[in-house]
Formats: sequence, C-alpha cells, structure tokens
Amino acid sequence: MAVRILDKIKTSQDRFEIRLSGSGGQGMIFGSVVLCEAIGKEGAKNVVQSQSYGPEARGGASKADVVISSEEIYYPKAMKLDLLLAMTQEALDKYYKDLKENGILVVDTSLVTEMPTKDYYGLPFTQMAREEAGHVMVANVVALGAICALTGIVKKEDLIEAVLLRAPRGTEDRNRKALEIGYNEALKLKK
Amino acid sequence: MAVRILDKIKTSQDRFEIRLSGSGGQGMIFGSVVLCEAIGKEGAKNVVQSQSYGPEARGGASKADVVISSEEIYYPKAMKLDLLLAMTQEALDKYYKDLKENGILVVDTSLVTEMPTKDYYGLPFTQMAREEAGHVMVANVVALGAICALTGIVKKEDLIEAVLLRAPRGTEDRNRKALEIGYNEALKLKK
Repeated sequence: MAVRILDKIKTSQDRFEIRLSGSGGQGMIFGSVVLCEAIGKEGAKNVVQSQSYGPEARGGASKADVVISSEEIYYPKAMKLDLLLAMTQEALDKYYKDLKENGILVVDTSLVTEMPTKDYYGLPFTQMAREEAGHVMVANVVALGAICALTGIVKKEDLIEAVLLRAPRGTEDRNRKALEIGYNEALKLKK
Repeated sequence: MAVRILDKIKTSQDRFEIRLSGSGGQGMIFGSVVLCEAIGKEGAKNVVQSQSYGPEARGGASKADVVISSEEIYYPKAMKLDLLLAMTQEALDKYYKDLKENGILVVDTSLVTEMPTKDYYGLPFTQMAREEAGHVMVANVVALGAICALTGIVKKEDLIEAVLLRAPRGTEDRNRKALEIGYNEALKLKK
C-alpha cells in the first residue's frame, strides 16, 4: 500500500488534499500550519492551509485542511480528501465521507474504536505521546511523523524544523521525540 | 469613516475579506486563527481562515487571511480585501494592491513609514506592545484589538476569550492588556 501512495503523490495527480481532524485542543491547526510550512519550504509546490468556523462547524469535531499542488491553488477548500487523519471517533464519523476512494485513512487507535473500513493505518498516537514522548499534548506531532513516513509528501528534516520553530520554548525535545516515534512506527506499518 | 465601515459590514455586502500581514514571527497566523474563532463563536457567520506557502509566498512578507460570509464560503481565498493590516513596510508594499477601493487600511506606524494613501488608520502597535503591554510579541494582539474597535466585526469579549484560549500559559495578562490598549486607542481614531 505504501508504494501505491507514494506513486500517487509523485506522479498521477497534481492536487493532494489532507485533513487533520480531532477535537478542539488536540492541536489540529498547529499540526496543519507546521505541515504546510514544512512542505512550502521546498518552494516547488503551492500549499494552502485553512480552517472553517460557523454553523457547519458546530459540534466537537475540529478540522484543519492542507491542499498541495504544483500549480496555483485557485480553489483552496479541501473537498475530496486524499488523506484523512482522525484523532477521535467523532471526527472520523464526521469526515470519513469526505475521503476519496483509495484515499489514505490514518487513525489514532487510542481513541477510535469503530472503523468504517479495513483499509487504514492505525497507531495509538495519544498513548504513544503520553508514554513515549512524555506528554499527551504532542499526539498531533506523533501523527505528523506518521503522515510524513506514510506519504513522503514532506522531508522529515523540514518537518522537524517547522515543528521546532513553532513549538513553545521548553518543549523542543518532546516534540522532536514525538515526531521520530510517529515516523518510525509508521514506517513499520509500510513493510 | 468609522460609521461608513460599520455600515458596510452590517448591511451592504455579504462577504468580508481580511488580511493580516507582516513578517514571519509577528504572529499573523495566530492573530487570524483567534480572530476566526472569535467570529465563529457567534455561529451566525461562516468564517474561513487560510494561509498559503509556495513560490508566490517567497520573501519576507507573511500573510494570513480571514473570509467572513453569512453564506457558505465556496471560494475561501481572499482576493479583494475589505481590510488589510500591514505590520511592516514590506507587507504593505506587497499587499496594498489587493485592497479594495474604500477598503480599510490599518498599519503599524512603528514600522511602516511610507504610506501609499492618506486614507488609513495608523497606530504604533509594536511600540504600544513593548511599552504598554510589556512585550513586543503581543503587537499582533494590540492590532486585533484595534481591528475589533474599527470594524465591530467581532465582539470584544469573544475576541479576548479566543486570544486567552490560545495564548501560551503565563502570558494571559499581557495579552488581555494588549487587546484592551489596541481597542481603546483605535476607538479614539474613530472620533
């Protein structure tokens, strides 16, 4: 599956849509901003990061989108997702319908129990953050590391640099560790 | 001028586009995320916050956009700005062309010296942050307070709540003070 994903991103389409979803407080905006900055660093692609609020955003599920294209992005809203990260059951239930056929589903198996498909990548991001990186707050960064490994859409070094640039002072080590753990564990899923 | 602005927002158009611009590190993304969350809190309006990276975003000027509409926002990219905040000369030079005729220009007069028009609201946000709120880092929040007072597009209480929710722990007082200073000084400009 991993090879299919990498091929898809690199060759067969110009536009790639990512949604990071979870509950408020899980750092989905932070995650999407740093992902966007890391991808933008190369300068070869256009990247737009966005989030919406309003009547349609009511409820506990929070989302932040990243759209990547080699051409100028005239329509920056994510509509048919190439990758959905779901950090909670509610977010998965709400946004799974927006995932493309053959889109990549990544879930936090610490918090999501009912899966709508067997075709997904699951890792216990929240548990990994708490037990291995020292704080539940960096579960979003564990997930970013996993997305990096699964898609190859961004260089790990660029992603670490972008995370560290925005991480609160004093949390650098924890964030770096979180990213490495997510990256390494996801690599194992690819084998 | 203030009355014109308020009228425009409340009555004559459905879509309102705001761009916060400055240099990287001045907190334009933070500012636009909290502005967006504060406006979204009422639930009556749709709000989309976005930023772009890529070839067209090269250089030192950083921007983050907020689009507000009472209808669903199909096209979330800001194109003709109703309000431009420019925290640096470079940002002003780069984005002034995107401001609508009769759009509202708000500049940080601590850092911007050459104005392309006489029709603007100027306050020394960076200086106010440093001298009156205790840290240059909250210049973005001083500017948010001013935008709140000048446009009435968001309730001050909602904005304070949104800022405090995302402000790093220990900076709450400084952020609250920054917002109040910006609000009060901008109110004086309206008289």
